[in-house]
Amino acid sequence: MAGASGLIPPEFIAAAEAAADLAGGIIRPLFRSALLVEAKGDASPVTEADRAAERALRAYLTERFPQHGIMGEEYGTERGDAEYLWVLDPIDGTRAFLTGRPLFGTLIGLLHHGQPVLGLIDQPVTRERWVGVAGQATRFHSPLGGGNRGGIAACRPCPSLATAELSCTSPEIFDAAGAARFERVRQAARRVTWGGDCYAYGLIALGLVDVVVEGTLKPWDWAALVPVIEGAGGRMTDWQGCTLTLESQGEVIAVGDPALLPEIVSRLG
Amino acid sequence: MAGASGLIPPEFIAAAEAAADLAGGIIRPLFRSALLVEAKGDASPVTEADRAAERALRAYLTERFPQHGIMGEEYGTERGDAEYLWVLDPIDGTRAFLTGRPLFGTLIGLLHHGQPVLGLIDQPVTRERWVGVAGQATRFHSPLGGGNRGGIAACRPCPSLATAELSCTSPEIFDAAGAARFERVRQAARRVTWGGDCYAYGLIALGLVDVVVEGTLKPWDWAALVPVIEGAGGRMTDWQGCTLTLESQGEVIAVGDPALLPEIVSRLG
Repeated sequence: MAGASGLIPPEFIAAAEAAADLAGGIIRPLFRSALLVEAKGDASPVTEADRAAERALRAYLTERFPQHGIMGEEYGTERGDAEYLWVLDPIDGTRAFLTGRPLFGTLIGLLHHGQPVLGLIDQPVTRERWVGVAGQATRFHSPLGGGNRGGIAACRPCPSLATAELSCTSPEIFDAAGAARFERVRQAARRVTWGGDCYAYGLIALGLVDVVVEGTLKPWDWAALVPVIEGAGGRMTDWQGCTLTLESQGEVIAVGDPALLPEIVSRLG
Repeated sequence: MAGASGLIPPEFIAAAEAAADLAGGIIRPLFRSALLVEAKGDASPVTEADRAAERALRAYLTERFPQHGIMGEEYGTERGDAEYLWVLDPIDGTRAFLTGRPLFGTLIGLLHHGQPVLGLIDQPVTRERWVGVAGQATRFHSPLGGGNRGGIAACRPCPSLATAELSCTSPEIFDAAGAARFERVRQAARRVTWGGDCYAYGLIALGLVDVVVEGTLKPWDWAALVPVIEGAGGRMTDWQGCTLTLESQGEVIAVGDPALLPEIVSRLG
């Protein structure tokens, strides 16, 4: 990834931020809306929000960069063989959105010849945003009170699972074999926290979580996360410790300290 | 609980809100602080924050109401046989706080002859607050964008588990027998979302979550939640469907629609 560092024009980054602003404007009014309250466990209002936001993202990016490809959860892939491919998930964390937790996110990733070179995690309700660019330090902005209000994001050192904070969205994310393999990591970790979707990866980049191990992810779930994590000093791979590609099977490891990887890969093995 | 409705003087409610403001002022600067980043899975900085906030809460409430009792997680019980007993958890959701998720909460409850008559859930980082008072409609305030910015909180109808959003902080919250009993509820529910601590109970009061089933709770984990949930039209009981008391064993059901209770109690059976 680092090799592509010089290749990201600033207008790509500005466009990703402007696109996230557009999506946020569509998603924010629906958060905890009467539509969701009345739907009572029905995902369809979320699907509608997802679709409306993805349409806005695609229209904006296509107009700005007509030669780029776009891949999104709701509307598939256009120009998939283009040099640059935008990979979009308007609402990552559907259940969080549906139940009123402000921990879902809009994910905007950009691949260059299949390698993630730009990634943005936007939480439209808390207005927190992570921006990762290949070869640059990840930036974080948060209006929330607290010790880390923004600036440069950095993972923390944590060379051993025994002292690591592990996070995972849900035990149901794994099939039976995957669950058994995950359990070996969980038992070796200091502690596990559940929930979080893309937000948990953002917390790795802030040095507050050390490991996320998940399964059944799609490219639009992870593409934007790679530059965020790696620009903060961490690493993302599949369960064999290999670089993620569009052909990866959706098993993902994210670590704040790359020294953790061999132990995790070995336990998942 | 409803019988005590006329008995809550407005100055008790104002004092609970002022006490939450004090605790928030202590907790907020520590959220995502370098102290937590460096501690890496060590709970001691959280314990320090917890203690400092509880000392402030106790000092304020004792000065205002010297005849009232106080029970807190960190400093035990004083005047436990007083007519009014304040029950305090400065940071409910230690793991959420430790990993930088703004879903923990400060809980301030007030028992009158052992019955919860006033409860406050405060999220000091997002500055969201639920206030429940026996015999009154629960109030909610949130500066976050979205459909429900505040005002009166209300649970939604949901008479069957098959359409219910279930929430639980963590699978590790149960012992082996409890886990098997919980699993029967999970399988009957439409969907489960993990994580949330007290915040998930607040989401019941907003009509976004229908059921929380948890175990191993202490009085300071649930006392403040009862007036919030019940003032929004829901119900909180133990796993037998009985009213919670200081002698309860820490098994808790919270529902937005009381019609759900028999089905849940039966499945937990």
